[in-house]
Order: sequence, then C-alpha cells, then structure tokens
Amino acid sequence: MITKNISILGSYTSKFGELWDKSLADLLFEAIGGVLKNSTVEPDQIDAIFVANMAAGSFNDQRHLNAIASQYFVHFPPAYRLEGACASGGLAVESAVLGLLSGMYKTVLVVGVEKMTDSEVSKVTEILATAANTNLEYGATFAALYALLTQAYQNKFGTNREQLSAVAVKNHRHALKNTNAQFQKEITIDQVNNSTVVSSPLRLLDCSPISDGSAAVILSVENVKNKPKIIGFGHGQDSIDLARRTNLTELKATKIAAEKAYRMAGLTAKDIAVAEVHDCFTIAEILAIEDLGFFAKGTGGIATAEDKTTFGGTIVINPSGGLKACGHPVGATGVKQIANIYELIAEDQYAVGLTHNVGGSGATAVVHIITK
Amino acid sequence: MITKNISILGSYTSKFGELWDKSLADLLFEAIGGVLKNSTVEPDQIDAIFVANMAAGSFNDQRHLNAIASQYFVHFPPAYRLEGACASGGLAVESAVLGLLSGMYKTVLVVGVEKMTDSEVSKVTEILATAANTNLEYGATFAALYALLTQAYQNKFGTNREQLSAVAVKNHRHALKNTNAQFQKEITIDQVNNSTVVSSPLRLLDCSPISDGSAAVILSVENVKNKPKIIGFGHGQDSIDLARRTNLTELKATKIAAEKAYRMAGLTAKDIAVAEVHDCFTIAEILAIEDLGFFAKGTGGIATAEDKTTFGGTIVINPSGGLKACGHPVGATGVKQIANIYELIAEDQYAVGLTHNVGGSGATAVVHIITK
Repeated sequence: MITKNISILGSYTSKFGELWDKSLADLLFEAIGGVLKNSTVEPDQIDAIFVANMAAGSFNDQRHLNAIASQYFVHFPPAYRLEGACASGGLAVESAVLGLLSGMYKTVLVVGVEKMTDSEVSKVTEILATAANTNLEYGATFAALYALLTQAYQNKFGTNREQLSAVAVKNHRHALKNTNAQFQKEITIDQVNNSTVVSSPLRLLDCSPISDGSAAVILSVENVKNKPKIIGFGHGQDSIDLARRTNLTELKATKIAAEKAYRMAGLTAKDIAVAEVHDCFTIAEILAIEDLGFFAKGTGGIATAEDKTTFGGTIVINPSGGLKACGHPVGATGVKQIANIYELIAEDQYAVGLTHNVGGSGATAVVHIITK
Repeated sequence: MITKNISILGSYTSKFGELWDKSLADLLFEAIGGVLKNSTVEPDQIDAIFVANMAAGSFNDQRHLNAIASQYFVHFPPAYRLEGACASGGLAVESAVLGLLSGMYKTVLVVGVEKMTDSEVSKVTEILATAANTNLEYGATFAALYALLTQAYQNKFGTNREQLSAVAVKNHRHALKNTNAQFQKEITIDQVNNSTVVSSPLRLLDCSPISDGSAAVILSVENVKNKPKIIGFGHGQDSIDLARRTNLTELKATKIAAEKAYRMAGLTAKDIAVAEVHDCFTIAEILAIEDLGFFAKGTGGIATAEDKTTFGGTIVINPSGGLKACGHPVGATGVKQIANIYELIAEDQYAVGLTHNVGGSGATAVVHIITK
C-alpha cells in the first residue's frame, strides 16, 4: 500500500497538434497557468515543479527547462527535469509522487511539454531515434523497431492487418469527442490498410503523429475529499536493445510496472474500467492491453476488432484518442494521460483508471492507478 | 532536520579529460562498476538508479540514459534521468535522497556522465548555450554571460585581474594531488593574466575545460556506522535570464540553496571545513564562497589571493582542483563533488564538508552537507 494519500487537485491539457503560433515556452507556461486556474491551489502553494520533456535540447535548442518553469512563479520553487524518452511524463509524475512521499513537499506541479514542429520531419525522426541504443541500433527509426515487434507478433499470433487497423480506427473515433485532439477525423479500416507503408508492416495510419503540446497536473499529500487519488504506481525497465530481449511479443517493462502498481493499489487488471495506454504505433496498444493484463496474450487484436476496447466493451482504452489521434508531443504525453484519467474519475464516469507510458521500444514503462 | 539517515556507502570517479578511447556508455558503465567495487553493496541490492546528464542527446545522439544504466544490472532497477544543465549531478543526488526519504527505496545509485569530445568545440559551445534562455539570450556563449557577471562584480567591488587569476592558480595547484584531474599542471598568475581573451575580462585560463568523465555514489537509508552521511540539502532557483535579476553580483539561487541546507543540517557556514564549489569560471568561485557564507560579499577575491581558500587557510575550497583543473564533464560534476567530499570525510580529513553545484548562469543551485 502507498503510505500517504496522493490527491490530484487539478489538470490542464493544451490543444495538441501543429501549433505554429506557439513556442516551447508558450506551451510550458500555458499548461502551468491552466492547471493553476483549474484548481483551487494558489501559485505560492506550489512547493516544487517536475518538468517532463524529451528533447527540447535538440528540437528547440533549449535545456534547463526546470529553470524556465520555475521562472513562472514569484517564489521560484525548486524544479527538476525528468527525461526517459517517450516515458518522460510518467517518470515526472512518479518523481513528483516520490517527492510528496519524502515529506519534503506538500503540493507539487507536474508539467510535460514538447514542441516538435520547430524541426523538419527528417530531423524529428533522427532526434526520436536517440531513445534507442545509439551504439547498437544506429540508423533504425522508431517505426522500424516497432515494425520488427509487429512482425514477431504476427509470426506468432497471426494477427491480421484489419486487427492492427482497428486500433487506429477506434482511437480516431474516440478523439472525435476530444476538442484538444490533433485529429478529430474519423478514418476507416480501408484507409489504414491502404495508407503509405512507413516500415512494413506499419503504415502511416498505424503511427502516432509529430505533435506540439503540453499538459499539467497538481498533486498533493493532503487527503482532499472527493478528489481522485493516485493509489498505486510502478516503474519497470527492460533491455533497451531489442536484440537482447528474450521475447519480442511482449514488453516486459510494462508487465513489471503493472504488477508493482496493482500490488501497491491492492487491485488486479479486472478492477480497471478505463485506461490511457501508450499507442505510439497500433501494435503498441495491442501489446499494452495484453501486458497490462486486460486481455490474454495474442488476443489483443481480436478484442480490439470485436469492439471490446471501446465504450460499452470490456474496458475503455484510450478514450482521449490516445497517442494516435490525440497526438504525441513526447514529454507531454505521460502527464496528459494522468490528466485524462483524473478528469474521468473526478466526473465519476469510471471507478478506477490506469495510465501506461512507455519509453523507446519498451525499455522504460511507468503505470499509475487512479481512483476516488 | 532530515528525517532519516542518508549514508554514503561508496564512490567512484573516472579520469576526467579528453578520453578519446572511451564512449559515453563506457564511461557510464565504468562509474557504475567502479562504485559497486568501492562499496560492499551487491548489484542486486540497488533499488533504483538516478542518472545525471546534461546533453548526451546532442553530444552523442543518445537519450534514454536511464534505460542504458539500468541495463548494467540483471534485475533492471527502475531508473531516472535528471537534467538541470550543469546542475544535473546535484539534482540527481537530491532526487535520489528524495527517493530514499519516500520509503520506496533503501539503496540507490547515482551516476553522472558526460562525453563532450565527440562534438567539435564550436558545437560544444552551442550545446552548452542551451542552458541559457534561448528566447532571450540567444547567441550568448556561457563565457559571455559570466563575463557580464564579472564586469558587474568588478564595477562594484574593484576585484582585480590578479584576484581572479588566483582562483585558477590555486585550483591547478590543488589538482596536482588528484590523479583523476584533467590538468595536473601548475600555472602562474602571469600565465592566467596573459592567456587569450575568451570574453572580456574572462581569459582562457579563467574557464573550466571541455571534458569527458563520469562519477558515481551509492546512498542508503540505513544508518551505517562510521560512514559519511548527507545531513542537509537545499535547492534554489532564480531567474534564468540575467536581465531579470535584481543583483548581478550574487547568485541568489546559491544563497537560497545554502540557507535551506544549513537549516536542515542545523549548521552555519562557519562549521564547514571543506567545500567543492561550482567554479565553471574563476568569477563563479568568488561568487560561490561569498554566497555560501564563507566570506563577506566583495571579499572573495581578496581571500583567495591571501591563500585563505587553500590548505592551511580558513576553509579549503575545491581540493580536487574544481571544475577548472579537475575538469567539467557537465553531468558528472555534481556527483563527483559528492564523491570528493565523501572521501575526505570518510578518511577523517575534515569534520564537515559541503558541495555546491550550479546550472547555467545561476538559475539552479544545489547544495549538500556531509559529515560522519
């Protein structure tokens, strides 16, 4: 069991997309101002800030984002920047929880941000590849690494093209209700099936987009009545090199993170009603819903095609539209997942929700469980 | 007071310098292996890893260093990467302490690394400039920003060229005993005075070098008898933009961090016998020894020139040679400072020591206090 109540006091998510009129700092400050407005917390109550960002050093020539974030406040709270590739957001939330559990801080702000469209697309692809093992996987794009995982999975379980496509179609449908989503546009199985091949068998509409965006939450150790709480969290690591893994049809880091989080919360996968999972590619959502224990290994594609992961199904996966349709401003993603689930639990739409954030091709995974 | 004992169980510092035969991963693994060897901790006892690195994403096309570090171990401990420009090491140590105080971890490893010589010098300068506010200070090198601080200081206190040079001469002399130092070479006041101007009034020998290197420490919440303990820490932030500061002759973040650390330790500046401070430029050491409370404002240069900051003086500053002579592989520096002071306290050379790590031109500062 977690030793203290970790209440979530507010959330904010910016519009995700190609935000040509906003800078990195604009997005960072928009989320900080937004989450303060969406809570009853006064700026001077923020004891510390945890900033999630993957690669502003390359995308925007800006490091030291902890100092930029602190500058928003008159009292300059101590600030930290966490990076773990695409899991930076999850790591920042987890670090904020550690900060609260330490007894050093009572109220902390977590903000995730990424401004990717300052760089041209080929450079973005190169920058994202720094999440893989540069020594051993040099030259492989992330689509290529996930294509390899898809091939291994299809060889073992025979998951077909339509099942992969069903993930993208479902997430685009979910995003129709999310006004912050990058793509509020329905797509069909045929459109995914016939989209351009990026790295076989992955096609353009299997891939999450390049996005700008930010998200923030405020966490507190006070047991605030009727506010959603983080009741469990887990953090798993696995080999960063795919070549060193014993099983390419699962992400072991996800399984470890989920086991830790379930144990801490005293719950099992069956208790989870809604989840935001890391669908950077369609295959990633299929792996996630299996590795998190929602569906048996090898059946995630079938479950998706049979509408078991949408409203009215067994569990609602990625009601926001996920990385695929809501967008994937890398450092913001893990924080935005917490914001999404917090909002659904706060509104009593579901009893228990889960977030799942992955770094690289699965070397880092962070899971949080939220309930009232 | 700090609520738990934070014992330091071991340390390791690689050779600092231009290490052409070692990669980023080599240096990372050398420090992890080294600190395990220099302690009685078994690898499977490491509950978590905190990695400090500023800019491997640009220097070495490698992010996600938490995953690379975790890969050293069979059990893949959860791992975090902290970045706060040149204060990354201090932030990682502080985050590790928060992790221990949270009750989630009993024994953690902190490792700092930077491999700067993979990039050409002009690119290194550009990458380091990402620690300033890119929107408002674009085009200013770090030497230029510290030159501005030097000018403001000289205008107010009349500190002369010889006093600045005395910092570099003293630190080079200290490094003669440090076999890991980048420069084991004595220099004279005249040599500093006549070295090439980098950004007036700062000359080449006022500046810390471009370095490769790594350092690691192991921390534990167990009260291990006769082992040095972290008894206080503090973290301060200030405006990242120099233009927004009210006083250019002090680093406010250092003062805040020091006050917090002294209060937590129940000590004052007078109790500190030895300190490793952030002398990225000679002016930075003068500011540090004043802002940490060792000398009155405006007298740091005089004190240095009068040998009050060397062996036999009032307090020993940078016995390792500091950033100036030991070297400054950015992400490693803050961890190496802890290693240095830990070793001196473990050997009973001093009763109480302090470390002081700064990010950018002073927007982030982290202070730790160590005693037995």
